[in-house]
Amino acid sequence: MSKKTEPRTLAGFMELMPNEQILFEQMKEKIEKTYQKFGFLPLDTPVLELSEVLLAKAGGETEKQIYRFEKGDTDISMRFDLTVPLSKYVAKNYGNLSFPFRRYQIGKVYRGERTQKGRFREFYQCDIDIIGDGELSILNDAELPRVIYNVFKELGFDDFTIRINNRKILNGLFESLEQKENSAEILRIIDKIEKIGEQAVIEELQKIDVKQESINKIMSFIKIDGTTDEKLYKLAELRIENQTFKQGLDELTQVVKYIRMFEIPENNFKVDLTIARGLDYYTGTVYETFLNENRELGSVCSGGRYENLAEYYTNQKLPGVGISIGLTRLFYKLNELNLVCANKKSISDVLIIPMLEDMTVPIKIATNLREAGINTEVFLNDKKLKAKMKYADKLEIPYVIVVGEEEVESGIVKIKDMKTGEEKECKIEEINL
Amino acid sequence: MSKKTEPRTLAGFMELMPNEQILFEQMKEKIEKTYQKFGFLPLDTPVLELSEVLLAKAGGETEKQIYRFEKGDTDISMRFDLTVPLSKYVAKNYGNLSFPFRRYQIGKVYRGERTQKGRFREFYQCDIDIIGDGELSILNDAELPRVIYNVFKELGFDDFTIRINNRKILNGLFESLEQKENSAEILRIIDKIEKIGEQAVIEELQKIDVKQESINKIMSFIKIDGTTDEKLYKLAELRIENQTFKQGLDELTQVVKYIRMFEIPENNFKVDLTIARGLDYYTGTVYETFLNENRELGSVCSGGRYENLAEYYTNQKLPGVGISIGLTRLFYKLNELNLVCANKKSISDVLIIPMLEDMTVPIKIATNLREAGINTEVFLNDKKLKAKMKYADKLEIPYVIVVGEEEVESGIVKIKDMKTGEEKECKIEEINL
Repeated sequence: MSKKTEPRTLAGFMELMPNEQILFEQMKEKIEKTYQKFGFLPLDTPVLELSEVLLAKAGGETEKQIYRFEKGDTDISMRFDLTVPLSKYVAKNYGNLSFPFRRYQIGKVYRGERTQKGRFREFYQCDIDIIGDGELSILNDAELPRVIYNVFKELGFDDFTIRINNRKILNGLFESLEQKENSAEILRIIDKIEKIGEQAVIEELQKIDVKQESINKIMSFIKIDGTTDEKLYKLAELRIENQTFKQGLDELTQVVKYIRMFEIPENNFKVDLTIARGLDYYTGTVYETFLNENRELGSVCSGGRYENLAEYYTNQKLPGVGISIGLTRLFYKLNELNLVCANKKSISDVLIIPMLEDMTVPIKIATNLREAGINTEVFLNDKKLKAKMKYADKLEIPYVIVVGEEEVESGIVKIKDMKTGEEKECKIEEINL
Repeated sequence: MSKKTEPRTLAGFMELMPNEQILFEQMKEKIEKTYQKFGFLPLDTPVLELSEVLLAKAGGETEKQIYRFEKGDTDISMRFDLTVPLSKYVAKNYGNLSFPFRRYQIGKVYRGERTQKGRFREFYQCDIDIIGDGELSILNDAELPRVIYNVFKELGFDDFTIRINNRKILNGLFESLEQKENSAEILRIIDKIEKIGEQAVIEELQKIDVKQESINKIMSFIKIDGTTDEKLYKLAELRIENQTFKQGLDELTQVVKYIRMFEIPENNFKVDLTIARGLDYYTGTVYETFLNENRELGSVCSGGRYENLAEYYTNQKLPGVGISIGLTRLFYKLNELNLVCANKKSISDVLIIPMLEDMTVPIKIATNLREAGINTEVFLNDKKLKAKMKYADKLEIPYVIVVGEEEVESGIVKIKDMKTGEEKECKIEEINL
């Protein structure tokens, strides 16, 4: 063997070093355990689907990014989110599921985006959705922010805000101004207000022929501020005579009321009338979540309510509400900023270092510790003590127990705390950390 | 929307119902936790790799099964095992890893095999490997069976046997008989002995021109039986004058000695001289594991020692030893036989059923239970009590607490055990399961 292949990893694919992977796994586990705390059921769908099924709806930008290929006669695509596979799954298994169907799925999805720093082509999404059979109480729209709240508290954050809006408010506003066709364009313009200022926004709206009266309405709408209750009050005060708007305001008011019932602190949620999210998909409540000290991360958890999950596959009306955390990107950013909160930085709690021929006692100690629930590694290879200690150090294993002839004879070992350097003597049969 | 796409899943891709998925996740978690108990570090490599990298070694049957495609100018393949990505990873990150590098990886791999019952094109492998830098003590070959032992005990099995052999014994035997080139063919023939009988094996060996004297040696070799120690003794008694054979016997003898030091019970391991495994790859110790009451499942955990993990990518000599559990197939078979051992069959420990307008108290109860570590769901939708109870029943949620006006007023609820039907009264602020 002389010619070697260079061991490269594809651009845009995250591959972590073990110490980072430990942190990543901890974040993933915290999210999963929180989802389970609320009774969401696990789901694991294939990474590959029939293109015909996966792309029943897709189009435009998304479709271009998809990894799609043929194998034999089969036209196959890699999933680009977890929502389309959920739709397929619910439509397919409708008769065998219990509704409301509450499921979580944590898995990799694939998008062949242009590579750039912090953008990934393979990334984890951590989703929960609640699907109703025909109908779904608005209470569910208020429970999801509580799940978001618990997740980010678990991840070690306090200063975050779940921003909430209702798509019907925006839709109703544009309907009442007879600007429904322009709505995507208008949203794009008002989204820039923080960057370009009020006057520039007005000018851009004029350019696309929005009437001055309508511009005034839009501007007073996006300038609504104050506390959550003040915003709701001012929305009502706009006196927009449109059924969709009224329904949206009514829903938002209810969601706020129930969010308080779920005991989310006032400073962790907020009505934000500028949040729109994917125009087509969401039809009611929408969420975005920001870490307030790191707004540059963008929304770290988004989602919302949709009318009909699986209309491309079934006539059953399946309304739902869901959220998604883009874990790969979130981890990448937090790790870069040194903000990943870790319970432990190593897998092993303790390393047993044998310094003798007969391994019986060191192995016995390890077996006992494992039975007591402690992750324990025995250094099985022949190295100098110094090299073995260095190994523990590099892996950041918190405790080390050296076992030599002397320790076996006396029945007493020293447990070394690798952080403080302190040593504690202990009888072999009584070792505990 | 009238024309609907049929919501199908690709053939050969497992997609479970929620109750099965819960069992699957439990098995996966037990395996993962056991791997961690022994200090293996987590690794998560991409599902996609450059074809040039992934297929540096592959060829023949494997290559035909690979999902391979182009995206833009890039020739991409889906991983077909977790070992090649490990090789790439270790070669790539050699300078930044601590050796011995002990890693586990649990992930999906892809093989476009012909579909048949119980065969999957997407399946989980649960791997551990220990990689040495230049050298790796034989003690590691004895530690892996202990990991296998712990895994299958955790999964609820007692009657399983880890069968152990050493490739050098077979290689040395064939070398000594000047049958090295024929070894694959000979192994194929002797593998059939249980099916076709001794005489037929002898005849087939004659057909491929193995000398009678050599056939006698081979037959006395494969007929070696008795206890583990008797087998080792009889192997020595064969007096095969070959260095490879002698080294293999010496290694096997050591592994047996150390396996006892790791306190694996005698009835859970066994020397089996017929085990060969992938001829090229493994170079020393090899393992296969069988559930004795379900031999038809084939080996449920296999692996072995290899000389050089990453020779296609690097000049560094990286010997290793590893095992793999094909979880998807194992789960499929065990589930079919009703042998999956479950701690719990639902995600939620308790369902709170509100039977009143104001949800404050039911939600408060749920929040408190979750804080106490109990997975709790609140039935948030408007249904009759009977429908709500049926939901708990179908999801096999073990406890139900109905909260109506009466309960809120008295401050006392009844906790219903859904299995026994028993009800226990409890003050709201003291609820515990």
